[in-house]
Order: sequence, then structure tokens, then C-alpha cells
Amino acid sequence: LQNGAPKEIRETIEKAGKNEILDRSYPYRQQMDKDEYQSRMENLQLQLVRMTHGVKTTGRRVVVLFEGRDAAGKGGTIERVRQNLNPRSCYIVALPKPTERETTQWYFQRYVARLPAGGEIALFDRSWYNRGVVERVFGFSSGPQRSAFFRQLPNFEQTLVDDNITLVKLWLNVGRAEQLIRFLAREKDPLKQWKLSNVDVEGLAKWDEYSEAIHDTLHLSHSPISPWTVIRSDDKRRARIAAIQTILHAVDFPGKDSAMIGTVDKMIAGGPEMLDA
Amino acid sequence: LQNGAPKEIRETIEKAGKNEILDRSYPYRQQMDKDEYQSRMENLQLQLVRMTHGVKTTGRRVVVLFEGRDAAGKGGTIERVRQNLNPRSCYIVALPKPTERETTQWYFQRYVARLPAGGEIALFDRSWYNRGVVERVFGFSSGPQRSAFFRQLPNFEQTLVDDNITLVKLWLNVGRAEQLIRFLAREKDPLKQWKLSNVDVEGLAKWDEYSEAIHDTLHLSHSPISPWTVIRSDDKRRARIAAIQTILHAVDFPGKDSAMIGTVDKMIAGGPEMLDA
Amino acid sequence: LQNGAPKEIRETIEKAGKNEILDRSYPYRQQMDKDEYQSRMENLQLQLVRMTHGVKTTGRRVVVLFEGRDAAGKGGTIERVRQNLNPRSCYIVALPKPTERETTQWYFQRYVARLPAGGEIALFDRSWYNRGVVERVFGFSSGPQRSAFFRQLPNFEQTLVDDNITLVKLWLNVGRAEQLIRFLAREKDPLKQWKLSNVDVEGLAKWDEYSEAIHDTLHLSHSPISPWTVIRSDDKRRARIAAIQTILHAVDFPGKDSAMIGTVDKMIAGGPEMLDA
Amino acid sequence: LQNGAPKEIRETIEKAGKNEILDRSYPYRQQMDKDEYQSRMENLQLQLVRMTHGVKTTGRRVVVLFEGRDAAGKGGTIERVRQNLNPRSCYIVALPKPTERETTQWYFQRYVARLPAGGEIALFDRSWYNRGVVERVFGFSSGPQRSAFFRQLPNFEQTLVDDNITLVKLWLNVGRAEQLIRFLAREKDPLKQWKLSNVDVEGLAKWDEYSEAIHDTLHLSHSPISPWTVIRSDDKRRARIAAIQTILHAVDFPGKDSAMIGTVDKMIAGGPEMLDA
Ligand SMILES: Nc1ncnc2c1ncn2[C@@H]1O[C@H](COP(=O)(O)OP(=O)(O)O)[C@@H](O)[C@H]1O
Ligand SMILES: Nc1ncnc2c1ncn2[C@@H]1O[C@H](COP(=O)(O)OP(=O)(O)O)[C@@H](O)[C@H]1O
Ligand SMILES: Nc1ncnc2c1ncn2[C@@H]1O[C@H](COP(=O)(O)OP(=O)(O)O)[C@@H](O)[C@H]1O
Ligand SMILES: Nc1ncnc2c1ncn2[C@@H]1O[C@H](COP(=O)(O)O)[C@@H](O)[C@H]1O
Repeated sequence: LQNGAPKEIRETIEKAGKNEILDRSYPYRQQMDKDEYQSRMENLQLQLVRMTHGVKTTGRRVVVLFEGRDAAGKGGTIERVRQNLNPRSCYIVALPKPTERETTQWYFQRYVARLPAGGEIALFDRSWYNRGVVERVFGFSSGPQRSAFFRQLPNFEQTLVDDNITLVKLWLNVGRAEQLIRFLAREKDPLKQWKLSNVDVEGLAKWDEYSEAIHDTLHLSHSPISPWTVIRSDDKRRARIAAIQTILHAVDFPGKDSAMIGTVDKMIAGGPEMLDA
Repeated sequence: LQNGAPKEIRETIEKAGKNEILDRSYPYRQQMDKDEYQSRMENLQLQLVRMTHGVKTTGRRVVVLFEGRDAAGKGGTIERVRQNLNPRSCYIVALPKPTERETTQWYFQRYVARLPAGGEIALFDRSWYNRGVVERVFGFSSGPQRSAFFRQLPNFEQTLVDDNITLVKLWLNVGRAEQLIRFLAREKDPLKQWKLSNVDVEGLAKWDEYSEAIHDTLHLSHSPISPWTVIRSDDKRRARIAAIQTILHAVDFPGKDSAMIGTVDKMIAGGPEMLDA
Repeated sequence: LQNGAPKEIRETIEKAGKNEILDRSYPYRQQMDKDEYQSRMENLQLQLVRMTHGVKTTGRRVVVLFEGRDAAGKGGTIERVRQNLNPRSCYIVALPKPTERETTQWYFQRYVARLPAGGEIALFDRSWYNRGVVERVFGFSSGPQRSAFFRQLPNFEQTLVDDNITLVKLWLNVGRAEQLIRFLAREKDPLKQWKLSNVDVEGLAKWDEYSEAIHDTLHLSHSPISPWTVIRSDDKRRARIAAIQTILHAVDFPGKDSAMIGTVDKMIAGGPEMLDA
Repeated sequence: LQNGAPKEIRETIEKAGKNEILDRSYPYRQQMDKDEYQSRMENLQLQLVRMTHGVKTTGRRVVVLFEGRDAAGKGGTIERVRQNLNPRSCYIVALPKPTERETTQWYFQRYVARLPAGGEIALFDRSWYNRGVVERVFGFSSGPQRSAFFRQLPNFEQTLVDDNITLVKLWLNVGRAEQLIRFLAREKDPLKQWKLSNVDVEGLAKWDEYSEAIHDTLHLSHSPISPWTVIRSDDKRRARIAAIQTILHAVDFPGKDSAMIGTVDKMIAGGPEMLDA
């Protein structure tokens, strides 16, 4: 596994202290304090419960996309969002790779089938953005297919928004050293080994291809109508807080309490420019 | 039934001869000659078989919408299209009215689920255009819902076309006297009685509301990218010929023979301006 | 094509007169007279319209399976059943071959998805019986898969019947010479060529494997609860009449007129013993 | 809320100490010790990860039903099962109440649509057993519908088992006092209030109807082929351990370690006779 990463990355890791954040450019040197994290998270959970209730009674529909490199923290964040919510109202959509029949259909077709009905919140663990990133890096789709995707994307998302669906797009961004650390931890932890797929392991050596694909994808799909929130996720705690805040700020619901939600840390979450921060 | 139509219409009908076309403005006074019809139809059928074969081998996707007032001839035309085709490649989509759950979803969602995979031809017997016409005349949807529909429609259809789906939109247009004649025939013919729904009978008296809804809908949805072909259908034979010609001209396939298909009669088929012809 | 059939079959064909029925064991030497056919068919159509109306108003559900060798007349018979019926109530189910994902699911799963809701009539153009016949002859499924199929089949169909679904299973049986004639006609007729698939052409030489597979399948699946009606289909007219009669007799509906339906010709339609008649 | 429960229950609750188990008939007086719980749970999680991996590589299919009265602990147990598993392989099925169209279909139809493909584990949060219990207590279905359900049930489940699907049916059983305690806790806890539906609150006063419906349902559906495991859930920890053990014992997978899984506590989990223990 280690060989997928360049030498300087491995050295950074060796020199780091516990809980230290590796990425030099990260705005904090340490994880958020545990007590602070827990007390803030509790407030956010309370607001999520209210939000879900509000969504149900008003018949709203909410779509949240969780995207990011492997080990960026998508799964854990999704868990924090849904842990106190009714599974009949708020559910995860994690589609397997398309069948050969699906590959001949309109690319968005199988995602459309999973859009929420009134009162529902759909959390997408990966999404149609596969086409722009992992499918490009691994050659699962062709250049013309990706061009078509990017041509159709604005229309598609604008239509969802026009239809009064709340669309929240979260990009969890993780640094190269932190990703490697997490991969190594997965490798050691028998509970996490499944998370290490071939795609991941081979992906390690493709860091730069990924970076390029992500850069292109985010810039082509970031707009005032359906903006990305890029969240710096080297510190999982700050990332989860920012992700949930972003969702809560995006949805209107009775009992929404902006003070309880708090403002999103601008050094942690922002637009695509955050990618290169 | 008769009472749904104004007096002058009923008089026109009484005075008409057999096979005479009632609408004074129709460009022909008589139905197309039977022999001519049959020999042309045979050629068109042959080309349809070739087209389906071509669609299958090249993996193309074709969507044909059949729209029009009740008794305009949608069902019969669809039958002529598919009668010699493989039901596994070319199938009818005739959706029932939406369930209450579906009414809370994105309006196009259940139609998207029925879009063709590669090699398939989907014939829509009525379509998403219900929203603009029958739902308006009968109040099945609200004004804001219809506004949303018309805002989203261009994007939706452009995306299909962009995705290389061949989209053919046929509007079968029938005059008021001819419609009444057909309703009366249905009423008498025990094989056709099912075709007379409440929507039809009540619709009779709503001719003008229909006309207005049709006019608005067609103009809002006719464009160079996804144009309507309006077909004057008082003569069923000419209408069916023109409909199939329009489909065949729209699809590219090996063995396509333009001479065999023939040119579409410009007095029978054209853009939305045909509505008021 | 001819080479797929043995010499004596080809000779039979050469010696035959027009409209003569080739199979020596067939109970009639000539097709049913055209006028008689048409007048009976008209009555049956009228009853089908009533039946559909009755099914709709009472919320019944009807499933009809059309099975038989290639060129046995499934498609044409289905057309006669549905030609005057509302496509929103009575529709064809013609599933493509299963996707690779579907092949890992419960075999009946994709068929269950297409079972009718209240008021609907589903006409299956081929069905789950593919497993017993074509999949066996062509090796599309394994021995254990077929054993599982036959174990589960009685339960499955009994459940449908228990649930008050009317299940009609029609096996159209065609003789070897007649099948070849029809294949040859398809080969010549550009409108029918698509009907000749590879499966068919290769199937010709597999007549005996087919016969055995059919024999086993019908006997394993014929029971008082969900019986087969085997219809001798060398005469298409008699076959269509008998098929529609069988459907009409199976469904209860207001306005059912047994005299108008008539009794099924016992020399044409019966149980699996008809196979070897 | 309190008024839904009889006086003696409320008194039991008032007199109880912290972490004390209220039900006099429960085989333990105190919750399982936290450390013991955590160390056992860790082993079980490791085995679940292995199991999922095994299911994926061998293409097996697993269905687990989680049933029980409200507040019996279904949700929490499901979370412990899936928390370390790949959401693309192991997912929750939590169907909303049926649409009006679905109510006219075969009752099992919408569940069949969610049966797993090869390599997948489907966790049903409530299931087809709604028909026997909540639908009976609240009159959501008719007597004849329930009779049909119980007639068809054995066939249905036998077919799944015959098809090599591993079917695990867990009934979490909670005592009346403990249920009330949990309801009261939900009422107070803003994170849990959503869990208190009208069905629950009204259900409180229907304890005996529920008991009867549960008794009948479990006895009618418990068999050597598809047995129930009833789990006494007043102690959540012991219940979760027993539930996961039951799943692990039911599935064969490479790396299965019976010692690590441990034997199920016979005083906690057993057949339907446990209901009245
Ligand atoms: N052949 C393929 N074509 C298209 N997408 C694929 C293909 N193989 C894998 N994928 C997709 O790539 C993404 C990453 O794969 P993987 O790392 O295995 O999944 P996960 O992130 O769930 O662990 C998934 O969304 C998967 O569906
Ligand atoms: N690889 C396969 N696996 C399972 N079924 C198949 C496969 N290939 C074809 N079939 C099925 O065999 C049947 C006969 O095929 P074919 O003769 O091509 O179709 P049709 O009868 O529609 O003309 C169809 O139902 C088709 O779905
Ligand atoms: N009208 C209805 N018909 C059938 N089932 C219903 C109906 N209303 C509720 N249910 C079902 O009853 C069960 C219990 O309802 P509820 O307590 O609200 O759900 P949950 O257990 O998810 O909190 C759910 O599975 C729900 O789908
Ligand atoms: N309540 C409704 N809401 C929306 N569409 C409807 C409704 N009732 C009927 N329709 C549609 O109107 C069209 C004409 O109805 P009919 O003439 O009854 O077949 C069909 O496409 C129906 O699906």
C-alpha cells in the first residue's frame, strides 16, 4: 500500500504526533477538541430531527450528495446525519456499478428513479459525479460520454432546483498524507478492511489524475444555482460539523435556530477554490 | 352525447355524405383511396422493419410521443407502427394516472423510468404533455405545477436529444365535427365503447378550453430541437401515412430508402401553425 | 434454413396444396373457413371488450401466458386479444433476456414486478417458462437452476391463484412441417424477417430436444389449480378462436354470454396430452 | 402518554432503580455489564465484516427481518449490524405505507422487488409481517386479506429458502413496562421524539390486541424451514448481542469463527414460546 505514495508523504506521516493534522496548509494544527465537538454535534442533531420533521409535514424534498476521494469521510458523515432520523423519511442511496443494460440508458436515469418523494430526504453516497471523477480516472467511461455528462449536468440540476428540491452538494476534501494514514489504518483495522477496494489501492498512485479530474468536475458544475460546498476534511470532526451545518442552512424548516446551528467555519468550508487551499 | 356539441356541428354531420371529410378547411374532400393507402402503407411497414433492425444493431434509442384530442387516432396509428415489429424492441408506454406518491415526485420521474435502453423504441400513448392539456382542462393540476412543467420542459427534451435519443413528437389534430362523428361511432360500436371515457364525454363541451390549452402547449414546446409535427387527422389514412413517414424520416438506419418512404404531404403535416389551418 | 429439417418434412411441404394443413394427425384438413372465422372472432372481440370492462370495474387481475415454439403463433394471437382493448388496462409483457444482475436474483423476481394491479390484464409474450424450454435447449441455465425452478413453480402459481389472480396458461403447439413453412415464409417476407432470430434458426435442428423439454415442462406444471391449455395451432384461425375462448371462459364478468363465446373445440384444445395427439 | 398504560405498570416504573430491568420474569435483574458488552460486540462486528465479505465473494443473498413492537429496539439493532458494513452490499429496506395502487397488487409484490441480488444483504426494518400485526390492530387490512396472507406466507418463505436465500427472522420482544419507559424517554428526548408516531401512542392502549396478534402471527409463521428467533429485549445489550449472533450463525462464510461468535443465551433468545416467558 505504502508504495502508492511518494516518499515525502511517508516521511510527513512518520514525523507527525498523535492527533496532529498532517497537511501543513490546514488552518488548524490539531483536531477539534472532543468536548466542543460533542456539544456542538448534539445541537446539530437536534436541529436535524426538527428539519426532518419539518420536511415531512411540509412535503419538501431534499437531496444531499456526499462526494470526495476515498477515505475522505463520506460514510462517517452520512452516519452522523442519519443516526437519529426516521429511516422511512431519510435514507441512503448507494448505487452499485451500472448493469450493462443501464450503461445503454440515459446516464441520469437510474439516479432519477431514486429521487425523493414528498417528505423525504435522500442521502447519496456517491452520485452521478462518478462520471466526472472515478470513471475518468479508471477509464470506466469514454470521453464523449463525459462530455455529454457535463453538457447535461447544469440542466439536470437546475431542473431539480426549479422543481423545489433542495439540492446540497458536499465535496469532502482530504490531503494526501491524511488519506494514506486512513488507508493504512483501514488496512490494519479488520473492521475497516472492506473499505479498501481495488479502486482505492490503485487510486493511491493516481493522486494527480484524481486531482485534475476533481478540479475540472467541480469547476464545471459549481454555480449559483447548485453550488458545491468543499469541506476540508483532514479533521473529521470539523468536517462533520461543517457538513451538517451546510445541510441545515440549506433547508427551511419550522423551529430552525440559526444560533444553535452556528456559522460555518470559512477556513474549513467554501467553494471549489478550497480545493487548492 | 350529442348535446355536448353546438348545433352547426350537428348539422354539418347530418348533411355529409359517406367518406366525405367534414371539415371545410381540410385540404381534401375525400379519404385517401384505399388501394393507394395500402400500397403506400406496405412500403412504410417494410421500412419500419428495417428501422427497428437498424435501431437494434446500432443500439440507438427512439422515443415517439403520440398526442392529440380524444378520438384523434392515436391508438390506431400506434397499432400501424408496431404491428410488424418485435415487441421486445418496440413497445407501448401507456401510463395510468399517477399514484398519490407519484404526484409528490418530480413530474417527469415516472416517464424517465420508461425511457428506452439501447436498441429500443418506446411509443408513448399520451405522455408528459398531459400536464399541459388534459390536466389543465380538467383541473387535475394547479397553475404553479403547470408553470413549472413548462419551465422544465425545454431542458428535459433538450437533454434527451443531446443524449442522442431520437425524439419524435406527433400531434394528431382532429376537427370538431369529425371528433363528434367518431364519438358517436364509438357509442354505437360495442367494440369501441371503452374508448369513451368520462373525460371524453365531458371533454366534448370543453372544445374551446381544449383548443386554448393545446395552442399554448404546442407553442411553448415547439422548437428546432424538439419540434412538433401536427398532423391533420380528419382523414385517418393520410394521417397514419404522414405519422409513419415522420418517424422514418427522423431516424437514421441502414437500408433507409427515401423514395420508398416518400415525402410528407405538406398540407397534412406541419408545425403548430397547422392547428389553425 | 431448409437444412435444419429432415427430408420427409421437406417432402410433405412440397406436396401440400394451398391452405392445406400439413400435419397428418391434425383433425382438420383445411383451415377454418374465412367467413366463419370472422363472424366468430367478432363475437369474441365483443366479449373481450366486456371482459376488460368487467375486470376494470371489479378490480380483478388477469394474467395470460402465451407460450409455444417459435412460429407457433403467439404474437398474432396476442394481437387479436388486445386489438380492441384499452392499452392502459390490457398490456403486453415481453421481457428481454435477463441482465447479469437479474440472473443472480430470484428467477421469478422480474416477472413478479410485472404482475397486474387491480383492473389490469397482463398478456405475457413468453414467460417464466423460458427456464424450462428455451433455456434448457440452449443451455442458458444450469440443471440445478432448472430443478429449483420446477420445485418453486407450483408454489408460485398456486399463490397467484390463491390471491385471486386469474391465471390462464396457453401453449400453442405447432407441427414440424407447419413450423418450417412459417419459417420459410418469414424468410421470404421482409415484414417478418425480424421474427427469425438465431435462436429460431438453430432451434430448427433441435426439434427433438425441444419436444422433450416441452413435454417435461408441461407435465411438471399442469395441475388442476393452474392447468395448461394446449392449442393445436397448425390452423391459425382455429387456434386463435380457441385461445380467446379459453381466456373468456376463465374470467367471470358481467355480461358474459356463454353462447356468444361458444364451446372450445375439444379436438383443438385440451391438456398436455394434446401435445402428442 | 402515561394514560395508555394501566396503573400497576406505572407503579413498577416508579419503584425501579437505574439500569434495573423491570420485567419480573426477565432472567436478569441488570443490564449486561458495559465492558463485557463492548468486548463481545467488537468480536461480533469483526465477524459481520467477514460475513459480508464472504457473502459478496460467494454471491450469496441474505434477508434479515427485524420485527417487534414499537420501541422494541429494531432501529438500534439494525444500526449495530450495518455500522461497519459496505452500504453498497448491506442496506436497509424500510418501506413506507403502500400506495393505493400497491394495495390492489399481490401483497408480497413490493417486498419481492427489494429482495437482494447476489452478494447482497437486505435488512428489513419491518416487513411483510405488518399485515399480521399492525394492520390487524389498526384495521389497515381486512380479515380476508389477512387470511390470504397467512395462507400464502409459508409458500412464500419456503420459496426464498429453497432458492438459497438465507432468511433470518428476528422478533424483538419487549415488556410492557419497558416499552412505556422507552416511550416516556422518547417523549422527553428531542432527538427521539420522531420515533413516537400516532400508531405508537394509540398502540399503547392496545397492548392486549397487539399481544394476541403477535401470538397468532408468530405461531402461524414459525416452522423448521423459516423459524422465528424471539429475542427478549428488555435489556438492549443482551438483545443486540443475541440478534447478531443469530444472524452470524445462520450464514455460512469463510473465516467464520464459532468461538468468537459465541453461543446464544437460551434465556434470551428462542422460539415463539419465548413470547410468553
Ligand atoms: N466498471 C465500473 N463502471 C462504472 N463505475 C464503477 C465501475 N466499477 C466501480 N465503479 C464505481 O466506482 C465507485 C468506487 O468504487 P469502490 O471504491 O469499489 O466503491 P466504494 O466507494 O463504495 O468503496 C463506486 O461508486 C462504483 O459503483
Ligand atoms: N442468454 C439468454 N439467457 C436467457 N434467455 C435468453 C437468452 N437469449 C435469449 N433468451 C430468451 O429466449 C427467448 C427466445 O429468444 P428469441 O427467439 O430471440 O426471441 P423472440 O421469441 O422474442 O423472437 C426470449 O424470451 C429471450 O429473452
Ligand atoms: N394506512 C396504513 N396501511 C398499511 N400500513 C400502514 C398504514 N399506516 C401505517 N402503516 C405501517 O405501520 C407501520 C408502523 O407505523 P409507524 O409507527 O408510523 O412507523 P415506524 O415504525 O416506522 O415509526 C409502518 O410500517 C407503516 O408503513
Ligand atoms: N386525476 C387525474 N390526474 C391526472 N391525470 C389523469 C387523471 N385522471 C385521468 N388522467 C389522465 O388523463 C388522460 C385521459 O384519461 P382517459 O380519457 O380517462 O383515458 C389519461 O392519460 C389519464 O391518465
